[in-house]
Amino acid sequence: MPHNDLDALKLRLRQFAKERDWDQFHSPKNLSMALSAEVAEIVEHFQWLTEEQSKTLPAEKLAEVEQELADTFVYLIRLADKLNIDLLAAADKKIKSNEEKYPAEKVRGSAKKYTEYE
Amino acid sequence: MPHNDLDALKLRLRQFAKERDWDQFHSPKNLSMALSAEVAEIVEHFQWLTEEQSKTLPAEKLAEVEQELADTFVYLIRLADKLNIDLLAAADKKIKSNEEKYPAEKVRGSAKKYTEYE
Amino acid sequence: MPHNDLDALKLRLRQFAKERDWDQFHSPKNLSMALSAEVAEIVEHFQWLTEEQSKTLPAEKLAEVEQELADTFVYLIRLADKLNIDLLAAADKKIKSNEEKYPAEKVRGSAKKYTEYE
Amino acid sequence: MPHNDLDALKLRLRQFAKERDWDQFHSPKNLSMALSAEVAEIVEHFQWLTEEQSKTLPAEKLAEVEQELADTFVYLIRLADKLNIDLLAAADKKIKSNEEKYPAEKVRGSAKKYTEYE
Repeated sequence: MPHNDLDALKLRLRQFAKERDWDQFHSPKNLSMALSAEVAEIVEHFQWLTEEQSKTLPAEKLAEVEQELADTFVYLIRLADKLNIDLLAAADKKIKSNEEKYPAEKVRGSAKKYTEYE
Repeated sequence: MPHNDLDALKLRLRQFAKERDWDQFHSPKNLSMALSAEVAEIVEHFQWLTEEQSKTLPAEKLAEVEQELADTFVYLIRLADKLNIDLLAAADKKIKSNEEKYPAEKVRGSAKKYTEYE
Repeated sequence: MPHNDLDALKLRLRQFAKERDWDQFHSPKNLSMALSAEVAEIVEHFQWLTEEQSKTLPAEKLAEVEQELADTFVYLIRLADKLNIDLLAAADKKIKSNEEKYPAEKVRGSAKKYTEYE
Repeated sequence: MPHNDLDALKLRLRQFAKERDWDQFHSPKNLSMALSAEVAEIVEHFQWLTEEQSKTLPAEKLAEVEQELADTFVYLIRLADKLNIDLLAAADKKIKSNEEKYPAEKVRGSAKKYTEYE
């Protein structure tokens, strides 16, 4: 039984690959490439827009971006599965570490600070 | 109240950005760039490895890759939030569409077919 | 004898890889990954900047971006060499094709058109 | 008068953008995104291929990859132009620095060393 939604997706994607005998192509190396190609399709949607325009996409374009986000998510889950990485736990750990690294009172509000601390 | 783990992460990340006044930098355009930069750090770990080596990373390297996956996940959740996209629903829809697009009995087992259908 | 500056760089990079016995790592697949990782380092410099800020980088940051552009150029030349592609001829052909695809009088001046035609 | 082939391409691309009034979209930030999207199209061609397969592309696929390399080259030249960076000089400087950083006798032949020194 899946423990949560992410787990459920992971199992479905395993099944999907298994039924098609596509596991042979899903080395972490290859999946990292597929992941980066999907993210680039998101970038492509935004490359000539201003930041403001990127906040208010027309419905049709938003629907396309949604599909690219879904593809990215799918490959990220698949890659994490192949490496036995628990995405939720990893994100939790990373956010905690970021909270210590960038204390709110120290970094607040300045673009310059943001860039430097990044 | 968050409805699930992903929702909980989304709310935590909102709070994190708000406390630091970093929302101003988080346009979808900028977040798509940050997402692609994080994914590239995953790619960098695998670029000189064989596919086989990418499956059996030494523990230290795996821990680094785990952090890059976490960063990628965090920016993906953040970008989806800014666009009001529900990642779980989008992935569900995409997998269903892929199941129809690539029927198992039709595409099974052939690298050539896999590449063409991709 | 190299026929032009690009040719000269290509031969130097061949020699560089040969002397270090690194040719074995330079499959087109791997080089495409290295190329994308270098480009992401350029993107990283710009991700939190406004478009205006990206036009007037401080000297120190510009020097860093220059190095990332050099790395990108080096891997692009190397990848083209491995695929026996003549970059200058390919670019010439592409620009000619773009000139026909986007006639100036038809596409001039409109962001909307630019995006659509892209 | 252009001083070399790269210079000539740079001037042609300037003219191309000017005639279409597209300069307004070509901030370094935007061009870095376009560059990364083009490179991802190269990566996409190689993602499911083995390293060996990537060395011997069928003619049709090679022609497609050639176009993606041309697009990448075009955006790289354009970005360098906008930042007043001389690509040939930058590459020359980078290669010299790499020659010192990775002395042939020290790094030769070992994948492990290659990865570490990278």
